[in-house]
Amino acid sequence: MNASPTTTTQVLLVRRPTGAPVLEDFRVAEAPLAPLADGQLRIRGHWLSLDPYMRGRMSDAKSYVKPVEIGGVMCGEVVGEVIESRHPGFAVGDLVAGDLGWQTVATSDGKGLRKILKDVPAAAQLSVCGMPGVTAWCGLLLIGEPKPGETVVVSGAAGAVGSIVGQIAKIKGCRVVGIAGGADKCRHAVEDLGFDACIDYKAGRLREDLKAATPDGVDVYFDNVGGEILDTVLARMNPFSRLPVCGLISQYNVTEPYGLRNFRSVLVNRIKMQGFIVFDFAARHPEAVKDLAGWLAAGKLKYRETIAQGVGSAPGAFIGLLAGANTGKQLVKLI
Amino acid sequence: MNASPTTTTQVLLVRRPTGAPVLEDFRVAEAPLAPLADGQLRIRGHWLSLDPYMRGRMSDAKSYVKPVEIGGVMCGEVVGEVIESRHPGFAVGDLVAGDLGWQTVATSDGKGLRKILKDVPAAAQLSVCGMPGVTAWCGLLLIGEPKPGETVVVSGAAGAVGSIVGQIAKIKGCRVVGIAGGADKCRHAVEDLGFDACIDYKAGRLREDLKAATPDGVDVYFDNVGGEILDTVLARMNPFSRLPVCGLISQYNVTEPYGLRNFRSVLVNRIKMQGFIVFDFAARHPEAVKDLAGWLAAGKLKYRETIAQGVGSAPGAFIGLLAGANTGKQLVKLI
Repeated sequence: MNASPTTTTQVLLVRRPTGAPVLEDFRVAEAPLAPLADGQLRIRGHWLSLDPYMRGRMSDAKSYVKPVEIGGVMCGEVVGEVIESRHPGFAVGDLVAGDLGWQTVATSDGKGLRKILKDVPAAAQLSVCGMPGVTAWCGLLLIGEPKPGETVVVSGAAGAVGSIVGQIAKIKGCRVVGIAGGADKCRHAVEDLGFDACIDYKAGRLREDLKAATPDGVDVYFDNVGGEILDTVLARMNPFSRLPVCGLISQYNVTEPYGLRNFRSVLVNRIKMQGFIVFDFAARHPEAVKDLAGWLAAGKLKYRETIAQGVGSAPGAFIGLLAGANTGKQLVKLI
Repeated sequence: MNASPTTTTQVLLVRRPTGAPVLEDFRVAEAPLAPLADGQLRIRGHWLSLDPYMRGRMSDAKSYVKPVEIGGVMCGEVVGEVIESRHPGFAVGDLVAGDLGWQTVATSDGKGLRKILKDVPAAAQLSVCGMPGVTAWCGLLLIGEPKPGETVVVSGAAGAVGSIVGQIAKIKGCRVVGIAGGADKCRHAVEDLGFDACIDYKAGRLREDLKAATPDGVDVYFDNVGGEILDTVLARMNPFSRLPVCGLISQYNVTEPYGLRNFRSVLVNRIKMQGFIVFDFAARHPEAVKDLAGWLAAGKLKYRETIAQGVGSAPGAFIGLLAGANTGKQLVKLI
């Protein structure tokens, strides 16, 4: 048995970015670990999840949660193993998940920590059966309310959330059209994930391609990106369509927000548009995880991971994620 | 008893406007009246309602209903008296309301025609207890869902819909802030209609004035105008706020739509935004009219009318309505 570690390697936020984050906004540092107090436990991280929402936490603009402090550890979901515990609810060897931050070893009081599912691969607890999967389930089913035969469009289609949104919509009997950046991602969405079509917005014909791919218009648009893509899809929405707003990744790095010109469609088509974050539906999470784990076990959900090695690679991987460099879930292997 | 009229005076749409409509887009013309067929009835109009939505019907852009045809009679709600009937459901002397168009005498097959309430002034059946009032009731209560103590903001606050929205919100125990164009309209909203505050957006300090008038943020924004005012209010919305989109009058006459820059607030504050038209809630209309007539009888709803004389004055009055020249309900007295 190894001795308990005495230090943790952390990624700190040292500067708030203007526009796209750069490596200099982060610093990798070693920090000592104090002995555990009563009620605390220590976790060695195995996998760190990188997600677009983290860009928001780097800014101090008003948002739904407090930003990461300057000099503080970047926030992020981690799956890891309990290596020391003075907490009655957790024992050494337990596999847990929670917001433990960008670091190799975390100290926790157990709040917000959950034991992970036994039959699902550890990393999948950060994707299909974790926050991205639950986000897809909640936004699509609770706000989007897709009916069989309807057309569902999802942007960020090859990303951690979008790839699950499209597959759930297929399970529900919908026609599914993805929007993604690049031919490889689009091929992945159609050939591996089973989307009916996927549009490469980088090809520069989004309006025409979307029209061709949605001959009956759009009944649900699950938006992960905002900006010009949202504007273009707005013009294709059907009467009484639904538009869950999950993310605005195209806008996270810009200093001047895109001006949305097709807002008129909201009135003309009586669109129901709703912003949400996964925590708004906490009461439904067990049901979501049960569905997702069931579909995964039945081979109905496929997923891909892009893996960076070591906590020190997290800043670069995160910068790449915001630029669309990943396909599927972006993870950092911590051990 | 007068002989039945043999002609009707009509306002025709003769050209689709680009930008703001002008008088030359309309023509006033006399048309002969054919003898009634079985199942038809003839109505002499007393009051014609002018409403912003009519601007949409003048364009052939895709919308929720077909546009008025070139050479066709402008559409519009009329209250009038049955002067001749070969319809079993209507007798001479009945007072009725329906979409009979901009004309002095209309011929109808009875479809969409309703007998008006006995205890409500005829013109009020086109405002408080008519389409604008029902629109206010449906949008505010069914989409806005205001709770006592919440802050409700409404634009077009001195208009036919906005003035009722604010008064219903007061009845429901909310703090009500109007937005209107000009000091007179704002004084009317506060002093006559009982709004807690009303902001004159023409004063050029909308952002600052809105902040001062909504110290606890905005829980419901009932939008009649779109554009820059919507954009400004978006930035004041509270978490889990609601935003019924009823009209976009600021955008009806523009050739280049305003680019909405504060869309991020929809995600950050998890706003529920929904476009609607009054007909979407047809099943709830009887309940709405009952409430409105009850509040009116109890002295809880006040309204103002701006009245133009004669069907020939309708084009000018309508152009003025789009420019905000009216306070309260814009009517045309037909007789």
